[in-house]
Amino acid sequence: MVAEILAVGTELLMGQISNTDAQYLSRRLNEVGIGVFYHSVVGDNPRRLKESLKLALSRADIVITTGGLGPTEDDLTKETIAEAMGRKLVVHDETYRAIAQFFEKQNRKMMENNAKQAYLPENSMIIPNHNGTAPGCIIENGGQIVVMLPGPPKEMIPMFEETVFPYLEKKTGQTIYSRMLKIFGIGESEMETRIMDIIDAQTNPTIAPYVGAGEVVIRVSARCRNKNEADELIDPVVQKIKDRLGSHLFAINGETMEEVAVALLKEKEITISVAESCTGGMLASRLVNVPGVSEIFERGFVTYSNKSKIEELSVSKDTLDSFGAVSKETALEMVRGLVRRTGTRAGISITGIAGPGGETDNKPAGLVYIAISLDRNEMCREFKFIGDRERVRTMSCLNALNMLRKMILGL
Amino acid sequence: MVAEILAVGTELLMGQISNTDAQYLSRRLNEVGIGVFYHSVVGDNPRRLKESLKLALSRADIVITTGGLGPTEDDLTKETIAEAMGRKLVVHDETYRAIAQFFEKQNRKMMENNAKQAYLPENSMIIPNHNGTAPGCIIENGGQIVVMLPGPPKEMIPMFEETVFPYLEKKTGQTIYSRMLKIFGIGESEMETRIMDIIDAQTNPTIAPYVGAGEVVIRVSARCRNKNEADELIDPVVQKIKDRLGSHLFAINGETMEEVAVALLKEKEITISVAESCTGGMLASRLVNVPGVSEIFERGFVTYSNKSKIEELSVSKDTLDSFGAVSKETALEMVRGLVRRTGTRAGISITGIAGPGGETDNKPAGLVYIAISLDRNEMCREFKFIGDRERVRTMSCLNALNMLRKMILGL
Repeated sequence: MVAEILAVGTELLMGQISNTDAQYLSRRLNEVGIGVFYHSVVGDNPRRLKESLKLALSRADIVITTGGLGPTEDDLTKETIAEAMGRKLVVHDETYRAIAQFFEKQNRKMMENNAKQAYLPENSMIIPNHNGTAPGCIIENGGQIVVMLPGPPKEMIPMFEETVFPYLEKKTGQTIYSRMLKIFGIGESEMETRIMDIIDAQTNPTIAPYVGAGEVVIRVSARCRNKNEADELIDPVVQKIKDRLGSHLFAINGETMEEVAVALLKEKEITISVAESCTGGMLASRLVNVPGVSEIFERGFVTYSNKSKIEELSVSKDTLDSFGAVSKETALEMVRGLVRRTGTRAGISITGIAGPGGETDNKPAGLVYIAISLDRNEMCREFKFIGDRERVRTMSCLNALNMLRKMILGL
Repeated sequence: MVAEILAVGTELLMGQISNTDAQYLSRRLNEVGIGVFYHSVVGDNPRRLKESLKLALSRADIVITTGGLGPTEDDLTKETIAEAMGRKLVVHDETYRAIAQFFEKQNRKMMENNAKQAYLPENSMIIPNHNGTAPGCIIENGGQIVVMLPGPPKEMIPMFEETVFPYLEKKTGQTIYSRMLKIFGIGESEMETRIMDIIDAQTNPTIAPYVGAGEVVIRVSARCRNKNEADELIDPVVQKIKDRLGSHLFAINGETMEEVAVALLKEKEITISVAESCTGGMLASRLVNVPGVSEIFERGFVTYSNKSKIEELSVSKDTLDSFGAVSKETALEMVRGLVRRTGTRAGISITGIAGPGGETDNKPAGLVYIAISLDRNEMCREFKFIGDRERVRTMSCLNALNMLRKMILGL
């Protein structure tokens, strides 16, 4: 079955709000095995709405509309669609009473145009709205289905979950299970080159790569009846991808890099502290965003000035003078001073030039040194990142966590 | 002129991402006097993309596509549209060199499929991409215009602003100058109540409020011929809004709260250091994201454990035992220890419960204490934030910076 989502509302076309309804509905429809081929957005204009509905019905089995069910004159979805499908609008007594009650409860006066919301297409299923006055409805027509829902997510989502989703599950008898694999350290194109044949050979589960912020994500989705069947279908495919991508694959359930790192640290009971220059607290902040991190994260230093590197981390003035603050030597002295001072088993230091400004002839913006210490073993790597200040800092954090992960796992 | 926005990407139809590009572009197009009648979203499918383009060209003067310009096999926007419009793809030397350089700089190998991004429709205007490898392009064809942009907002937005918006301004003969006013400390509805009459009375410039992450933004946009005329139109309106909103108005040129704080610190030559518990480096990280911050930012401490609060900031064990780590007393001792140690004129300390977990009967998740020290004057405020861990931490940082701003300005 194929669905199309048709949003109605001039405020969407003015850019006042974003069409998050379409995202929500698409995700849920895909989960129940209904493909979505198109989204469209049209304004509060009967002619254009009627044409969009006609087009949608020419290419989909199910059309879900959002918006245009309100009490104002602009709200014409119900009227337009009922007319296009040859259904009369008739008053729905239960809905009328519910709307009257809704106003009574709030000591507000029910207006004439609110009564209009109690008129619904004849021979349709009513979708009650417990968070507003506009009910939705489902019309079945010669094998096709039109579902009308209100626009505000606060009303639309509960109505979809309570009434529409169970209705669709019964129709399809299917569910989709997905797993999110995450890749780091190779680009989208290299990843695809390595696993293209696996992607092409797969039909169930399907494999779909896409790109996030500094990481590549692969979604493996199986159409099946239950979780066990899903695992049986997905597990061997994940293993195949793992064999090709090796240590670049860092998560198989959509975890972030910091979630993976914190989970590893907790599992191995490794305490950690960090010392940051150019990232300026971003690495600590990412670690601290993982709930329960206090078990292993002890403290962090943002040693932005040279003076603070000397005072807090005992970096020698000689090293700073001879090699500069952005150097392998300084990164290593930072991490050494750090673990000596905090007594944690692991330590990370980052020093670099985030730019703009601060670059010299032989040290461009984007040059970053990251050092890791783990049970007195040390390593340091040099990176040359491109992009703006924010990107250089983000990439520094992700690479630092990835280095730590690989060092703990002995990869 | 009428525009249509056509987004290409199966990830949108799967509900993995939301079509925020369409919202952004709609707002900007409306500002330059171009109406948007439809948005549509189609997957990475050449046949359906071609049909959608045909439909869009049948009802709009300008079609802007987003997405599908990446290096992978799925990315077919350019090929499909060029074919539909009878244009050959030819290699664009400058773009090829730019992509090669992009990979060289990062010490990464350029793959065969990256070269594909250098092929662009003949006789088209190239839109350079400074934040990725996929260039965009503008095709003019018998009075109609097709603009192709990449999907990731980080690439799409700068390309639109640098190349497409000025191009459209020239086409429409209209220019829009906007100023972004930023409000903190009152909600959208209160702000709207306070200035509703000003909004309603304005036609040029127009005033449009919208809500960002933890802040309210008001865009004042004037239609006019040049910058001087714009200032003449906008300045008195900004002054009127300022009179109503007082110290809640913190920026009149779209600056972030940290940019405002850093600019103030630099102007007054006030050095600063920070000590963070629940925000875990986020405050330092926000400060460090402002270029040139090294003039005034000295260092930061992420004192997550009680032990680190004692060792690094000389918080007394008694205080921690009697009042707890999340208390006014601890926040004040943290900031006192901090400025004593670093010798900076200003200091900020934050301690709180970001949740989930960590809450007690009388200390709920969201409870945060923020202390500021400025030239030995101290103040401390208690906050009760609602929302998830990330929101509690973000609101803590914004409020800390806002407190500092007001203390420096004597507000």
